[in-house]
Amino acid sequence: MTTPIMSPSADQQRYELYSPTLMPQAAAFLWNSQLMIQLNCRGYATAQFMQPEPAKYAHAPNLEAKTFMQPEQPYYAHHPGRFVYIKDEDSGEIWSVPHEPVRNGAERFVFSAGKTDIAWQLTLAGGIEVDWRLTLSADRPLELWTLSVKNSGSGHRRLSLYPYFPVGYMSWMNQSARYLPELQAVVCSSVTPYQKYPDYFKNKYFKDKTFLLAEQAPIAWETQQQLFEGEGGLHAPSALQQAELNCSDADYETPVCAMQYRLALGSGQQQQYRFAFGPAYDEAEVADIRQQLFGSAAGFNQAVEQYQSWMNRLQPALQIQTPDAGLDNFVNHWLARQVYYHGDVNRLTTDPQTRNYLQDNMGMAYLAPAVTRQAFLTALAQQHQSGEMPDGILLHKDAELKYINQVPHADQCIWLPVCLQAYLDETNDYGILQELLPYKDSNEQSTVFEHICRAMGWLWLKKDERNLSYIDQGDWCDPMNMVGYKGKGVSGWLSLSAAYAMKLWAQVCEKAGNTELAALYQQQAEAFNQAVNQYLWDGQWYGRGITDDNVVFGISKDNEGRIYLNPQSWALLSGAANEEQQQQLLAAVAAQLHTPYGPQMLAPAYTAMRDDVGRVTQKYPGSAENGSVYNHAAAFYLYALYQVGQADSAYHVLRQMLPADDEADQRQRGQLPVFIPNYYRGAYQQLPRTAGRSSQLFNTGTVHWVYRCLIEGLFGLTGDGDDLRIEPQLPSHWPEAKVTRQFRGAQIQLHIRRDAGVDKAQLWQGEQQLPELKLAQPQSGQSYQLTLLLPQEA
Amino acid sequence: MTTPIMSPSADQQRYELYSPTLMPQAAAFLWNSQLMIQLNCRGYATAQFMQPEPAKYAHAPNLEAKTFMQPEQPYYAHHPGRFVYIKDEDSGEIWSVPHEPVRNGAERFVFSAGKTDIAWQLTLAGGIEVDWRLTLSADRPLELWTLSVKNSGSGHRRLSLYPYFPVGYMSWMNQSARYLPELQAVVCSSVTPYQKYPDYFKNKYFKDKTFLLAEQAPIAWETQQQLFEGEGGLHAPSALQQAELNCSDADYETPVCAMQYRLALGSGQQQQYRFAFGPAYDEAEVADIRQQLFGSAAGFNQAVEQYQSWMNRLQPALQIQTPDAGLDNFVNHWLARQVYYHGDVNRLTTDPQTRNYLQDNMGMAYLAPAVTRQAFLTALAQQHQSGEMPDGILLHKDAELKYINQVPHADQCIWLPVCLQAYLDETNDYGILQELLPYKDSNEQSTVFEHICRAMGWLWLKKDERNLSYIDQGDWCDPMNMVGYKGKGVSGWLSLSAAYAMKLWAQVCEKAGNTELAALYQQQAEAFNQAVNQYLWDGQWYGRGITDDNVVFGISKDNEGRIYLNPQSWALLSGAANEEQQQQLLAAVAAQLHTPYGPQMLAPAYTAMRDDVGRVTQKYPGSAENGSVYNHAAAFYLYALYQVGQADSAYHVLRQMLPADDEADQRQRGQLPVFIPNYYRGAYQQLPRTAGRSSQLFNTGTVHWVYRCLIEGLFGLTGDGDDLRIEPQLPSHWPEAKVTRQFRGAQIQLHIRRDAGVDKAQLWQGEQQLPELKLAQPQSGQSYQLTLLLPQEA
Repeated sequence: MTTPIMSPSADQQRYELYSPTLMPQAAAFLWNSQLMIQLNCRGYATAQFMQPEPAKYAHAPNLEAKTFMQPEQPYYAHHPGRFVYIKDEDSGEIWSVPHEPVRNGAERFVFSAGKTDIAWQLTLAGGIEVDWRLTLSADRPLELWTLSVKNSGSGHRRLSLYPYFPVGYMSWMNQSARYLPELQAVVCSSVTPYQKYPDYFKNKYFKDKTFLLAEQAPIAWETQQQLFEGEGGLHAPSALQQAELNCSDADYETPVCAMQYRLALGSGQQQQYRFAFGPAYDEAEVADIRQQLFGSAAGFNQAVEQYQSWMNRLQPALQIQTPDAGLDNFVNHWLARQVYYHGDVNRLTTDPQTRNYLQDNMGMAYLAPAVTRQAFLTALAQQHQSGEMPDGILLHKDAELKYINQVPHADQCIWLPVCLQAYLDETNDYGILQELLPYKDSNEQSTVFEHICRAMGWLWLKKDERNLSYIDQGDWCDPMNMVGYKGKGVSGWLSLSAAYAMKLWAQVCEKAGNTELAALYQQQAEAFNQAVNQYLWDGQWYGRGITDDNVVFGISKDNEGRIYLNPQSWALLSGAANEEQQQQLLAAVAAQLHTPYGPQMLAPAYTAMRDDVGRVTQKYPGSAENGSVYNHAAAFYLYALYQVGQADSAYHVLRQMLPADDEADQRQRGQLPVFIPNYYRGAYQQLPRTAGRSSQLFNTGTVHWVYRCLIEGLFGLTGDGDDLRIEPQLPSHWPEAKVTRQFRGAQIQLHIRRDAGVDKAQLWQGEQQLPELKLAQPQSGQSYQLTLLLPQEA
Repeated sequence: MTTPIMSPSADQQRYELYSPTLMPQAAAFLWNSQLMIQLNCRGYATAQFMQPEPAKYAHAPNLEAKTFMQPEQPYYAHHPGRFVYIKDEDSGEIWSVPHEPVRNGAERFVFSAGKTDIAWQLTLAGGIEVDWRLTLSADRPLELWTLSVKNSGSGHRRLSLYPYFPVGYMSWMNQSARYLPELQAVVCSSVTPYQKYPDYFKNKYFKDKTFLLAEQAPIAWETQQQLFEGEGGLHAPSALQQAELNCSDADYETPVCAMQYRLALGSGQQQQYRFAFGPAYDEAEVADIRQQLFGSAAGFNQAVEQYQSWMNRLQPALQIQTPDAGLDNFVNHWLARQVYYHGDVNRLTTDPQTRNYLQDNMGMAYLAPAVTRQAFLTALAQQHQSGEMPDGILLHKDAELKYINQVPHADQCIWLPVCLQAYLDETNDYGILQELLPYKDSNEQSTVFEHICRAMGWLWLKKDERNLSYIDQGDWCDPMNMVGYKGKGVSGWLSLSAAYAMKLWAQVCEKAGNTELAALYQQQAEAFNQAVNQYLWDGQWYGRGITDDNVVFGISKDNEGRIYLNPQSWALLSGAANEEQQQQLLAAVAAQLHTPYGPQMLAPAYTAMRDDVGRVTQKYPGSAENGSVYNHAAAFYLYALYQVGQADSAYHVLRQMLPADDEADQRQRGQLPVFIPNYYRGAYQQLPRTAGRSSQLFNTGTVHWVYRCLIEGLFGLTGDGDDLRIEPQLPSHWPEAKVTRQFRGAQIQLHIRRDAGVDKAQLWQGEQQLPELKLAQPQSGQSYQLTLLLPQEA
């Protein structure tokens, strides 16, 4: 057996990568309430903090555009990162930790993603062992770094260590840097550029300083990037050719935080250094941080522990033990974390897209249902009286709708019943429906129930004479912006999802005893379904929509964008597809969309603008919405497969969201399975070389659906009134699985196994077989041991 | 005598730098009607073309902000540039031309700035001589590159050459690259990112492709930046370790244009390669360019010659021969070129600031007066009926006011008479005053004369009860935006310049026979002057203004911003300062503002925000408007010095705009004297290390004033009705000077010399002494030889 290129740690708590070159984009991320940082295995970093809009404290070397996080973030030599140069004072050889900028290969390399830290363990020539580790403060936008250096060789070693934190081009108005001995910190100062005087007041309390604070005073330092680098270049900086760094100020020169420590290590000796890096308003704030971290011997460790405690708020709803070790590790250690990240910090935006906000909080229903409840109230209080939901939910008094939220999208209402259902199942909190809330454009108070009824009314209003939903300038697919911009085009997917939303809402009405409304919404759902069947069934699958000029697209006649995944998934959910149609569309998806990396969102990818479809057709073939394995869409499909009982297909789709157990697949994706990315490249037939490559972007609604699928589908542990239904859908090749489910404060331990002796599922509690496949009224604080016997698969 | 680090070429036509490391930021620039490119001596490039807004065809490796050109542009390893890697196929050694990215020192290095090309001549180890040269197309946004390689050593050499043109991160929507054998070109494709559908139509015909087109087919190529670079890094690319480049496509991967040629050169043999680089709409356009350049043997050279012809439109108004060789070279070869650049392409913006537009066209009065005339008409047709001038002049139907033009500035009207005066003197075209023009907000037609009268009326209206001009959110000093944002603050400088403008306009009225108006404007000018003397004379100099809260600033009480240059200069021009005040303010400027690099715009530079003055105080001390040697302000001072007859001081200020004849000064400034930069760093007392450093930014109104000063001041050759006045103000240490002046189609050759025999200036034409110090009615097409005898200085 060859050595793997990556694997979980022995205790399963971490995920490790053993090469800086085989998957060079592979990355991990940490966040706290104010900060998010993604570090790749070579030491490059992408970090943002909130003030209140996302801001950077380490910049590119040029004037960067403000933008949302980009997929497939390109790295380059001067990309921001967190590095330590190491020089052997005797031989003059230099290395850098973790890999950039010197790229002088370590004898041993481990990039280790933890839940509350990211670490590297390297062994350099002659047995210098280096541990370089980041954790965060719990309550500040602050990175906490520890550097441990040990001489595991036999000789004596004299080294210089140079923590090197590039800060980049901070501002064309004002930037500088100084080393402040009283703080033992390099403090870089800037003024956020602006031109209009009202922005002065808006920016006045920005944290425009970036600092690197050291526990121990360095022997020398440098604050001028250019002087540090010199003619040697980043890979062999001129400053390292000198005995000591120059100790120079930066005056309207690109700043850097570099320090030098000299140490001598006998065989077996080690030394530790600790640093803090982040933004600050002023030097007093840096001084305060210094006091907190290094004012007492225990300060730094307390901060580390506080962060661990803060992250321990996260209690996964599911722990599993199955024949699939890769899935186990991901579900038990990473998936709930990624779900929680979304709900916790809303992707570090002050105006999350409404659909993202609702879905991100759908995931929180399993982890922190009070957060979900509040999010529904926040969102619905921004609804218009008409029933229309805004394109983004404002989370801060100064927030504004930005970027894509300035473009009207027609789907925002459907997510209300779709996401609320998960919350209601998980909590049984039907009380939320009676909460009174105002509207964005009125102080009229009405109940959450009434709010959602109005949203359904809006969906019913915004359709054409055929009963197909207008798409406006987009639906779930943001860049499908030219199907209906003239006011006529309709969305097949949106019509189906309106049907599904109404079906779900009819059930809630039914439960609430309002059978009249239930019947109405059921009727309207049917009307949508019928219309889609009439106008968009293409013989083997559903078309995606009909343009302003009455052209049906996403159909067999199309050479590109011939089939879209979403209409098929949601036709399964909405009930539009009859049995025969289901078989046909499943076959069409399998034949045309499946790839080794998951189902593509559409195929063939567009290779040229289709201006009656829109911007989606201009994205690069196989990237993002233009035919990638867009995991959010794959997750809808996954959910739909479980809804129609396709357990094996579902497992297959689920598993493709993670790297397979083979090196070729892993290298192709290039990503550690510590998160599901928003996409893997598609266009598998057209561009096989890049198909499967991860976007490395961990902002995605995918994970909430995956979590829901695991709970409701694979392990089938769904709340049902006061009870917990137990109806798993294991893949046929699994003989057994164990799962621990946290549910309304109760802990349910379920052992599922196939038993040749049963021909129908049996649920046992201890020696007692339960009358139904449900646990009646589990009580908070109680623990339940259950066994579910399943018949052998035929 | 040691070798200089830079000098003019022997024929004075070029300027050469002999090291890539001593002045690493030193740069030269070329432009055509659609394109501007600045190349620094190490090979980095900053280029823009118009479509119609400025756009880039080679990008940073990340998502850049759209911005105006920045001073002190930072460079870094992956900055866009134009490079050639060279590999010795026998030894494996690699170099790069011109210096980046390998930085493997050449034995000989020349960076040579020409008027129509920029070239490098290098000699690499063993006698490989390389000439790498850029010129432009005359009529396309297109770079034309020539690479000549000669083996001047004695042995046989086998080399690979790799032109390497990074294209950077083109777009997050769509980017790719292919080598197209039928075009012998790498063509990189992209879609300019956007989100709103109307932008699709706006962007539809963008030149979103970038190509490198080769005369000769390469043996191999690479289009993936990352694959080219590999683990080796830009300084030692992995692709160069291979026998041949990989010939791979880039699919949503950062593109690059790299090609490989292999050649064997016997001793004395040479080889030439030619390339074109630029943006294109589609492949057909690239094919068309290929046909134009390489479809016939002469095509490329014809394009080069067309560009030279195009640039030959520029006929300097002045050729000089003085005791100051550095000044001669600059004035004879570079100054008019920089002036012309501004007027020719308006700094590559579609909405030049009104003051810039008028001043840039003031300079054109000496070079292409028809352009100046049209510019006045264009600007005045955008005036409001009220007399107010807009903050920017829109030059394209789709143009909008952007950046700083969205902030209201109070000074736009004063530039009308100030700049028009130069045009009238130069052309005697008083007919322009009778042209009929509409207003921005009305089709009412009135004469240019009436338009300018209304502008004067606006200035008179926008003052307070003290007769001081409201500053609003800024005057000439854009970032002085908080003196008057509450509506009360006034500008001393603006009051003085209003006085000066009215004084000038009164003279025009007088000339036009309108003595009543002349008296009125003269009166109003006096009122402004009086008010400034009453409220802003601080005892030794004039204050800069009075804030909204009635605080006078720019005065002796201030610790920072104690004295500003502009009010002193314009008090000399407006006549506000009497003889005694003149002496006092000149002394104050000398004592507090002078530095070895020129007079600072204010001192001491602000080190902290003063929120009753504004954003200028937040700029980095010594940079830009916060106390740099801001050459535009220095040029006003220069002009004022000539107006009050301070010939020696004036020459001193003029000369400081260029590097001195000493290496320390040259290295400190770090710039070639092929343009005057918008600033040299100031804060000379506070930050001596960086004082003098050039901004490297050649967009500046400075040069028009310098040209005007040379013509009207130093050489004193000003039009006066039908005549040419001849009243030079040579510095006292000059024994003589020769000057050739182009004036209304006539050529005047003037020899000025001091003569012990005269006690009063005498003007001679041949053997005949002329009655006055003027040449009466010079005729177009005629040549005049004059001698001016001056008395010896006391």
